[in-house]
Amino acid sequence: MIPRYTPTDFAELWSADARYATWLEVELAACEAMEADGRVPKGTAAEIRGKNLRLDSARIEEIEKTTKHDVIAFLTHVEELAGPSARFLHLGMTSSDVLDSSLAVLLTRATDKILQRTDDYIVALESRVREHRMTPMIGRSHGIHAEPVTFGVVLAGHLAEAKRARTRLRAAREEIAVGKIAGAVGTYAHLTPEIERHALSALGLHFETVSTQVVARDRHAALFSAMALLAASIERLATNVRHWQRTEVAEAEERFTAGQKGSSAMPHKRNPILSENLCGLARVVRAAVVPALEDVALWHERDISHSSVERMIAPDVTATMAFMLDRARGLVEGLVVYPKGMQKNLDRSGGLFFSEGVLLAMVKKGRPRQAAYEIVQRSAMRAFSGDGTFRENLKSDSDVLAVLTGAEIDEAFSLDHALAHCGAICDRALVMG
Amino acid sequence: MIPRYTPTDFAELWSADARYATWLEVELAACEAMEADGRVPKGTAAEIRGKNLRLDSARIEEIEKTTKHDVIAFLTHVEELAGPSARFLHLGMTSSDVLDSSLAVLLTRATDKILQRTDDYIVALESRVREHRMTPMIGRSHGIHAEPVTFGVVLAGHLAEAKRARTRLRAAREEIAVGKIAGAVGTYAHLTPEIERHALSALGLHFETVSTQVVARDRHAALFSAMALLAASIERLATNVRHWQRTEVAEAEERFTAGQKGSSAMPHKRNPILSENLCGLARVVRAAVVPALEDVALWHERDISHSSVERMIAPDVTATMAFMLDRARGLVEGLVVYPKGMQKNLDRSGGLFFSEGVLLAMVKKGRPRQAAYEIVQRSAMRAFSGDGTFRENLKSDSDVLAVLTGAEIDEAFSLDHALAHCGAICDRALVMG
Amino acid sequence: MIPRYTPTDFAELWSADARYATWLEVELAACEAMEADGRVPKGTAAEIRGKNLRLDSARIEEIEKTTKHDVIAFLTHVEELAGPSARFLHLGMTSSDVLDSSLAVLLTRATDKILQRTDDYIVALESRVREHRMTPMIGRSHGIHAEPVTFGVVLAGHLAEAKRARTRLRAAREEIAVGKIAGAVGTYAHLTPEIERHALSALGLHFETVSTQVVARDRHAALFSAMALLAASIERLATNVRHWQRTEVAEAEERFTAGQKGSSAMPHKRNPILSENLCGLARVVRAAVVPALEDVALWHERDISHSSVERMIAPDVTATMAFMLDRARGLVEGLVVYPKGMQKNLDRSGGLFFSEGVLLAMVKKGRPRQAAYEIVQRSAMRAFSGDGTFRENLKSDSDVLAVLTGAEIDEAFSLDHALAHCGAICDRALVMG
Amino acid sequence: MIPRYTPTDFAELWSADARYATWLEVELAACEAMEADGRVPKGTAAEIRGKNLRLDSARIEEIEKTTKHDVIAFLTHVEELAGPSARFLHLGMTSSDVLDSSLAVLLTRATDKILQRTDDYIVALESRVREHRMTPMIGRSHGIHAEPVTFGVVLAGHLAEAKRARTRLRAAREEIAVGKIAGAVGTYAHLTPEIERHALSALGLHFETVSTQVVARDRHAALFSAMALLAASIERLATNVRHWQRTEVAEAEERFTAGQKGSSAMPHKRNPILSENLCGLARVVRAAVVPALEDVALWHERDISHSSVERMIAPDVTATMAFMLDRARGLVEGLVVYPKGMQKNLDRSGGLFFSEGVLLAMVKKGRPRQAAYEIVQRSAMRAFSGDGTFRENLKSDSDVLAVLTGAEIDEAFSLDHALAHCGAICDRALVMG
Repeated sequence: MIPRYTPTDFAELWSADARYATWLEVELAACEAMEADGRVPKGTAAEIRGKNLRLDSARIEEIEKTTKHDVIAFLTHVEELAGPSARFLHLGMTSSDVLDSSLAVLLTRATDKILQRTDDYIVALESRVREHRMTPMIGRSHGIHAEPVTFGVVLAGHLAEAKRARTRLRAAREEIAVGKIAGAVGTYAHLTPEIERHALSALGLHFETVSTQVVARDRHAALFSAMALLAASIERLATNVRHWQRTEVAEAEERFTAGQKGSSAMPHKRNPILSENLCGLARVVRAAVVPALEDVALWHERDISHSSVERMIAPDVTATMAFMLDRARGLVEGLVVYPKGMQKNLDRSGGLFFSEGVLLAMVKKGRPRQAAYEIVQRSAMRAFSGDGTFRENLKSDSDVLAVLTGAEIDEAFSLDHALAHCGAICDRALVMG
Repeated sequence: MIPRYTPTDFAELWSADARYATWLEVELAACEAMEADGRVPKGTAAEIRGKNLRLDSARIEEIEKTTKHDVIAFLTHVEELAGPSARFLHLGMTSSDVLDSSLAVLLTRATDKILQRTDDYIVALESRVREHRMTPMIGRSHGIHAEPVTFGVVLAGHLAEAKRARTRLRAAREEIAVGKIAGAVGTYAHLTPEIERHALSALGLHFETVSTQVVARDRHAALFSAMALLAASIERLATNVRHWQRTEVAEAEERFTAGQKGSSAMPHKRNPILSENLCGLARVVRAAVVPALEDVALWHERDISHSSVERMIAPDVTATMAFMLDRARGLVEGLVVYPKGMQKNLDRSGGLFFSEGVLLAMVKKGRPRQAAYEIVQRSAMRAFSGDGTFRENLKSDSDVLAVLTGAEIDEAFSLDHALAHCGAICDRALVMG
Repeated sequence: MIPRYTPTDFAELWSADARYATWLEVELAACEAMEADGRVPKGTAAEIRGKNLRLDSARIEEIEKTTKHDVIAFLTHVEELAGPSARFLHLGMTSSDVLDSSLAVLLTRATDKILQRTDDYIVALESRVREHRMTPMIGRSHGIHAEPVTFGVVLAGHLAEAKRARTRLRAAREEIAVGKIAGAVGTYAHLTPEIERHALSALGLHFETVSTQVVARDRHAALFSAMALLAASIERLATNVRHWQRTEVAEAEERFTAGQKGSSAMPHKRNPILSENLCGLARVVRAAVVPALEDVALWHERDISHSSVERMIAPDVTATMAFMLDRARGLVEGLVVYPKGMQKNLDRSGGLFFSEGVLLAMVKKGRPRQAAYEIVQRSAMRAFSGDGTFRENLKSDSDVLAVLTGAEIDEAFSLDHALAHCGAICDRALVMG
Repeated sequence: MIPRYTPTDFAELWSADARYATWLEVELAACEAMEADGRVPKGTAAEIRGKNLRLDSARIEEIEKTTKHDVIAFLTHVEELAGPSARFLHLGMTSSDVLDSSLAVLLTRATDKILQRTDDYIVALESRVREHRMTPMIGRSHGIHAEPVTFGVVLAGHLAEAKRARTRLRAAREEIAVGKIAGAVGTYAHLTPEIERHALSALGLHFETVSTQVVARDRHAALFSAMALLAASIERLATNVRHWQRTEVAEAEERFTAGQKGSSAMPHKRNPILSENLCGLARVVRAAVVPALEDVALWHERDISHSSVERMIAPDVTATMAFMLDRARGLVEGLVVYPKGMQKNLDRSGGLFFSEGVLLAMVKKGRPRQAAYEIVQRSAMRAFSGDGTFRENLKSDSDVLAVLTGAEIDEAFSLDHALAHCGAICDRALVMG
């Protein structure tokens, strides 16, 4: 989590202060559940809350140097501040009860923030889809001009993908909102399922179906996988922006702000740096999936190998993901679109993309497909190498004229026909959940 | 997909013959939809079906050497066999309509087979959970004895994880059951959404919300991610079997069949080779996630970079996953469990795992937690280094006796109490969907 | 290893027949070493060799079904064929002595084949570097026109990278050419270091410094890492070809053979499918690095989890790598280069890329860099938005004319000057080892 | 780079202050080279150096908010502080000249620090190898007792692996110590190779053979690959420590310091937390390889997608690697070894591991290997299931006695013989470079 790629709210969320505050929340929620159960004097948690403890992260870390155990250091510090009533905290619990329930709280919060940003990104896409629903543009496969599309349809593809990513992330959010107050090896030896349910529910969490000493790590791996899929969907959009902004293509470009400088050497350059940056960040998010999967197979009731991984990837991935969404939304909102540039590119192929229409017209008239293909290819190849336009070539090819009239050829060259369904396609992405 | 790790049905599913047969299925489904639409003469598909074409994979690949295009080679071959009516196939379609809809059919079939095997694996786990619901065993964190659990609870953790993996895979199955008959760049320029819906529905597929030239690749990446999570859950079980079978632990072991040889040098060895193999295969399945994610950001309306990746990982991952499930099910069914070995290991710590009970008893009596911790640790450490048993040490420690009576100490040493909730935990995993 | 991406020699190299033949080679080399040592009767290996055994892979696999142990199955079969003298084989050895030394032989052979192909690929690149040493082309950063380069320099960058990849692969080749004939846990309990050295040297291998039961797996991981770096270097070239071949760029394209069809729908399309395929295959090769690294941390003196991984990735990665090199060499040799297209693109920016020259000229005349930058940017931006040419704008800007004469402005617009060092740069890549 | 896993010198090395200081170093080195070349007034760099600029990171970042370009912001700030002479900085250069040469300086420094720590780790291993050269211990394959080794040999395996990792890292260090002062697209349009050579040599760097706008990224990927291999070698050691420290194995354990607490619930627990932590961190380091490889295929003369990746992984991976080495060295130095525990485990199999010796003795006497194997397995299996000791069983088996005398059986049961070569093996790792 480096400042450059960390939204303020994520710097806060993953701060040491927020972490220890969450630990205290969990301890107090558990304490209240134990009060209800009768094993802790009524009012203990309220009393501690009333003291408004100011946890000192530095002090906790100092104690940890001796204990080499973070939760014990934390509890020692709480006892320093809260006095004797603190002895009722953590009764029958194990460190992981605190750590994993806290991590669930923090990851759920982080995911909610990411989902909110995903919504905003989706809204931005929707708006541009509506705007460019019928803006014609050449479709490209393999980077080569293929047939016409509309820019709205292109964005609608990104929109639908973003919505699928959101659906997956919502499912992962439910999976990660799971804590555990079940004691050393998850058996409630000194606790009860009721206490756990009571405490977790106050924290907005479900309980782990079967915990070991920890909450199962497939849940975390599922979350990071869902993030990587969301990041990949942004990477696809960003890659396309980079293509559109190429000097030779010039169909759209990132908003260039006043004062911004493209290059220290070439003042005139306007580079798609936001999009390139998003492509790089997608690699970072994607790279967390494998270690998260490697964390799943903990030994027996747990080992602590997952912990260092999560200390690094949980803040890094969620903050980066949020940053990516902010940037992607801004990219979409600010994208400067050049319909004229699109039209110019559409025009440059001289209607070669209507070849399929011609081919189909010939097939409908009874020519075998392969034969028709070869005939059409001939005119296309001539045009492609600069000899006549495609339409003229067709009209002067006797093999074509043996099948199609000039009028039928003209009919195949209709952009309106080619784009007739584009509005409906956009709508499908817009109405999708 | 190497024979050693490929179940027969997957060798069949991913054979060239099955692939081309599926292409033909897609072409015929599309043809029938176009008959309904009126653009192809009624009965065309039926006529071709009636010819019972025997597609010759070798012939198709020979034609491809010239065309360098697989679908054109396929269509040429179909025309060779089916005669003139074949000219009505593929009208207005692009290769990806065939390829991606076929891939969806094959991946859906593969996933269904994997889901069936997951069900079987889950049934096997459920049976062993019931069997060992109350079989006591020492729980371990960090590989060190912690507190008692039951073997049923341990298996229940694996069971709940397997069920979560199944839920995710079911969701991914819905995502992948999506085809596309929308023409070159997904605009239905020479087709209609109705034709697509008609054709895909006959194939058991939904239509892509917004296709480019292809079905969006986040769907495939989501599928491979779900597989990797399932594989990781098996890896965790397999890792634990490897631990249980260690010479020094000896709590459970893989079934050793008559004739089987453990080592070419050491005849007596019984090695957990199935489990080790499963750990290796989990790495293979996991390794497919990143390339699948890298496939998402295709350029513009598509590039073909994903194709080679999928040609390799789609068969490899699904076949390996199925193989893993077969093997994991067999492993679970055949697992030889040694409750006596478990009891022996439970006994070896002389009740040290009851330390938390003692600690809690002292806290309840009003001792601050940290002070109690240090007192209990003293007796534990003495016992740990061979000086007395833990219980005796406690009973001869005046700091303990200042708080607890001998009877209260004895009370803390109860296995029944420690395992009281284990049955209920097992049930949670058993009733889970 | 799918036929489509497997060169014939790799299909052969990784066949079951070749594998078992290599096992026999290792056994016989060890046998001869033991003859020299005196523990096996002289002539034993020669006698078995004389029998010209025809190992039957199917038979071995049938025996393995009972023994569940591949080397024991193999030895049983050898004994079936060779009779009593076979009892002197494998004396004091463990399966891994055979398996790992054989794997080293096969991986070394595979790597040698790959190195040979790398040489060929490099020769192809060198030839095109020489050819296009001074062919001007616009350099691009961020996909945006920057300053001129030569196509030779661009290819020289790919050449130098390929040579670095070769150097790394040569180092990895030395690391992998290491076998082990040291018995069960690598202690030579029933063997000697001399026997091992004798046997391995006959196989062209070094001995493992310290073996466990196996050769250490960091060697294999290093090999797969080196392959991934080579694959990445090809991916970079292939990515650039895809850019050059874009419709709008049209500076170079893949050779399009007679009969080849670009699209089933659009006859005129010429797609960079070889390059896209190479990008996909690079993902596959790259994906092997992580599982190879995960294989390193085998438990104690070994576990067999690496085996399934290697059964899959060793053939897959080496065959794919060889295929990629064949294809990349063909791509480079056949690349159709359009110097006129390059010139056209160079021209389209109206000399904007000379802005840095102008900037520097102003700085040399004493203007602070930032001030100069803003002045130059003004003319550039005007030109960029279609208002005048860059050179004219400069010449009519009083802030520029306050510093530079018209002649000095013209001087900054020299392509020869910009490319003056390009030949020397190409030479650096050509002479590099 | 989180504080917990960041050695102080790495926090310093990767600080914003150190980064900008290095940029200034590069600018001044280039300036001096241009002074030598005559294009900048002699003494310019010395004058600026003489001013002892106090760069203000916050100010630079503030300027960057407007320029959206880091190097321009930096240069603006330098000009603020240094006055007019600063206009001679950066002449003819591009941002990447500064950024990439600086990154090379920083990565080289980081790698040198890591190499120093690797040396220290190796020294620690060497010392323990010497100490335990002949300490007997049971070797294990598949976690199952196999044949005896010495603890020295086991550590020697880790030592040899560490030395191989060091060799690779040294090679990668040479590859990364490469900068670039070649202008916008690497053509020296406004510079010369001599200036570059002069400047880089002052910085301790070589020049890139062929640069694009940037230094080629395969160099960085090679560095991160070498790190991952080093991390994997530590992961293997750490995994073994975790096994040795298991309650049931108890052959070695991590140093447990006074005040350290194993568990918040179980005071007696001593957990191998350093080793588990190292396993987790190895995952983090490994995870950087794929994004680093993905960074290689930059578009044309460069895109900036690699930058965000490197901003995160360069500090993270190098700092984590250094932390791992510090921790691994401490782990090795402090490892508490229990030769008695090792002996106890050796003894528990009742000499079953001598089965191979018996087998070989029978084969030498002319029994076919497979027949002998089955005979020996019989006695082994009886002993394994608790029926007699292995040696007694052999001595009462008439099939054995038909071949071997009791004395010959006893001869096969010799630990000295089994370990005869262990000292020599240790020496091989100790003398290795």
